Amino acid sequence: MSQAAALTRDAQTGRYPLDEFLAEVSGIGASTDPIDRKRRSRDYFWYSPILYEQLKDNVADVVVTPRDEAEVMRVAAACARHRIPLTVRGGATGNYGQCVPMHGGVVLDMAQLNRVEWQKPGLVRVQAGAKLYDIDAATRPNGFELRMHPSTKRSAQIGGFVAGGSGGVGSVTFGGMREPGNIVAARLVTLETSPRVMELRGDAAQKISRAYGTTGIITALEMPLAPVQQWIDVIVAFEDFVDCVRFGHTIAMADGIVKKLLSPAQWPLPQHFAAFRSSCPEGKSVLSAMIGEMSLESFETLLALSKGTMTYKAPSEDVLGKVPLYEHTWNHTTLQVLKNDRGVTYLQCLYPHDRLVDAVAEVGAKFGDEVSQHLEFIRLNGYMTASGIPVVRYRSPERLYEIMAAYEASGVMIANPHVVTLEDGSRYKRVDADQLGFKHEVDPMGLLNPGKMRSFQPLTV
Amino acid sequence: MSQAAALTRDAQTGRYPLDEFLAEVSGIGASTDPIDRKRRSRDYFWYSPILYEQLKDNVADVVVTPRDEAEVMRVAAACARHRIPLTVRGGATGNYGQCVPMHGGVVLDMAQLNRVEWQKPGLVRVQAGAKLYDIDAATRPNGFELRMHPSTKRSAQIGGFVAGGSGGVGSVTFGGMREPGNIVAARLVTLETSPRVMELRGDAAQKISRAYGTTGIITALEMPLAPVQQWIDVIVAFEDFVDCVRFGHTIAMADGIVKKLLSPAQWPLPQHFAAFRSSCPEGKSVLSAMIGEMSLESFETLLALSKGTMTYKAPSEDVLGKVPLYEHTWNHTTLQVLKNDRGVTYLQCLYPHDRLVDAVAEVGAKFGDEVSQHLEFIRLNGYMTASGIPVVRYRSPERLYEIMAAYEASGVMIANPHVVTLEDGSRYKRVDADQLGFKHEVDPMGLLNPGKMRSFQPLTV
Repeated sequence: MSQAAALTRDAQTGRYPLDEFLAEVSGIGASTDPIDRKRRSRDYFWYSPILYEQLKDNVADVVVTPRDEAEVMRVAAACARHRIPLTVRGGATGNYGQCVPMHGGVVLDMAQLNRVEWQKPGLVRVQAGAKLYDIDAATRPNGFELRMHPSTKRSAQIGGFVAGGSGGVGSVTFGGMREPGNIVAARLVTLETSPRVMELRGDAAQKISRAYGTTGIITALEMPLAPVQQWIDVIVAFEDFVDCVRFGHTIAMADGIVKKLLSPAQWPLPQHFAAFRSSCPEGKSVLSAMIGEMSLESFETLLALSKGTMTYKAPSEDVLGKVPLYEHTWNHTTLQVLKNDRGVTYLQCLYPHDRLVDAVAEVGAKFGDEVSQHLEFIRLNGYMTASGIPVVRYRSPERLYEIMAAYEASGVMIANPHVVTLEDGSRYKRVDADQLGFKHEVDPMGLLNPGKMRSFQPLTV
Repeated sequence: MSQAAALTRDAQTGRYPLDEFLAEVSGIGASTDPIDRKRRSRDYFWYSPILYEQLKDNVADVVVTPRDEAEVMRVAAACARHRIPLTVRGGATGNYGQCVPMHGGVVLDMAQLNRVEWQKPGLVRVQAGAKLYDIDAATRPNGFELRMHPSTKRSAQIGGFVAGGSGGVGSVTFGGMREPGNIVAARLVTLETSPRVMELRGDAAQKISRAYGTTGIITALEMPLAPVQQWIDVIVAFEDFVDCVRFGHTIAMADGIVKKLLSPAQWPLPQHFAAFRSSCPEGKSVLSAMIGEMSLESFETLLALSKGTMTYKAPSEDVLGKVPLYEHTWNHTTLQVLKNDRGVTYLQCLYPHDRLVDAVAEVGAKFGDEVSQHLEFIRLNGYMTASGIPVVRYRSPERLYEIMAAYEASGVMIANPHVVTLEDGSRYKRVDADQLGFKHEVDPMGLLNPGKMRSFQPLTV
């Protein structure tokens, strides 16, 4: 792999000049303990049997835990001087090995850069290692909350979420992270012998979105917020999954109904929703939703015209110690199933906005029990549509690719979650040109998370 | 007109049994002063030369001004007993004679039913005669404001706005009044000898939306609110109107950019924007916008990629004594022109969401200076699109209908504002069946605002 050309592994031992590195970063928390290194070299890639085989043996040589940006810069400088790869680790809640050091070297754990720098109405500036849950806890007393969060809100960090570049609970209203306006600014440290600090504002901040930390070490982010609402968690049960999706779509398209989450899940997925099992009737598909309290009556009015039955309704209480409804949506659905059944994996889909319900019915008919669909309604490029993370009974890589092809034949786009590179995981099979060019500027030697941006070729070694 | 069959005009004088009516409503404010009656029998129908001729001579026989719902019921009972038509008057800011008594009789002025009944987070319950401006003033200290308001916010009343059933500033986010969720409940009084009070909740409340007060006398409304935001008023100037629309569309489709208003106006319309004239460069089309403060930087990022130049940027100050930017959009644009030039009138359009910019260019090429376009981006049925209220150099009714036909040929739907009936003004040329049926229930004699619901035939006389 050309990216590795610059790396200075010892020819015999395969190891990097760690002693020199550690001497240069003395005073900064560092661990070479094998168990700790292994633990902090992983994320949730094991949802994919394919990635599991590919990534399970990747382990960092050292994990460093800087306390501030100055320490980040010292680590970056030392990595640059000694040509050691550096992989940034956030909350490690990703599923594609985003923070797995494929070439070993240094894992930079951001957990201690977790300060909220300031808040303004509708805006917050935070260090990259702040947990989403903690950010909400800090901003809610001021009347604001993050616009969106992954289902892993309680452990995910903002830097990792932005570097993953997806969306989540809240994207039904605001779209994904990459919609203009959803990242206001990003501060980063370059990977050079004399690291620089850069502040990317406005659209430029998108250069670090969905780049897995390959385009600079994000140290701080300025994020737009949404006004706090009292959300009501709701579960609605349907005999038929397509009716469930149809009703979800009706609510999705009703711009007068305020919502943060709309996720139809096909039976038997709800069988695994332990915390809400009593609200998930046997054999029924369910819609999990978070509805603004002032819109609940309107929601129920439309529900009365559907074939659904409300089985759960309670104010969202986003407190530790209670399993939230949103932890049964997005890729947490897969996790809930995996807790009981290790024989499944998943796909990532984008349904066509103009024939969404038909596409759901069509792919549903193709695979029966082998694939259980659940959708998350989201806005994308100004249109309401839905992504989906079907849970698949795993047989083989070949069968998985067969299923993907069948989905694509029905007009459902696939972002393959069983690959580690940005390009292969993209619906467009390419990395954004801007990001590629930008990488030359901020990581000329290709030391940041090598192996993830396949198209990158270092110009200097 | 069959609706008038039930009316008890005296065969000689053409008058109603007013003395008996007045005796029955004694103690309730009433005026038979000719100047007052004339003044309170009009709205802004004079924007249309066609409606002006049709409506200018319609005058109520008496104007009554109840103080509470009990008085409304006494008036309704008296009208029913004596078969006198009753036309409800709100702020009279409409443009189609919504509150013009086409058969004379009683005008019921709602101005004194203006109390805010209660507020909850995201909800307000108000009497129908409350002014939109006053509602916002009452709810803003609690962190909420109306989701949408017409450009006539400072004089319009909530009952009239809902009975008009359109949308306004805010509809770019929440859609129009008729989107599910935008009216939570309505209370109304029936027109019968023993009037009943009805509470319509949820979707049922839509029975009074865009019914011009023909389906009961609205006395109170429960409306959903939006969280207060700091809005920034912005004007952006463009050499070319189509570029202006294109940029507006970009912002409209960017779900991460919070906005309340996006209105591109073609030169020479901005020449008449007196209060903002210094920010409207000679010969340029302008986009007037209200952007959430936290989204302003993102807005400017996208602006830098367009051909526009920002000429004005300041926090919205919605205070009396200062002309707000929004009073240059929606049908206030027409008013600004009419102040200088009485030779114009207007149309109402809905542009096709899937070829919006093309349709603007196409109809623009057809009429040159004869028609000046301005658009207001809105959500409709879950899609982002734009309505438009082009200002037309008036020649004749025939020419006006020619222009309408040409717009429709380009896929731009017309809601004709030069007619007084609900059916003719609708894009579908019909009244909602539910409303028609409901009218039989609440106004069996057809005494409410007769002449406006053309399809209605009273079953009982």
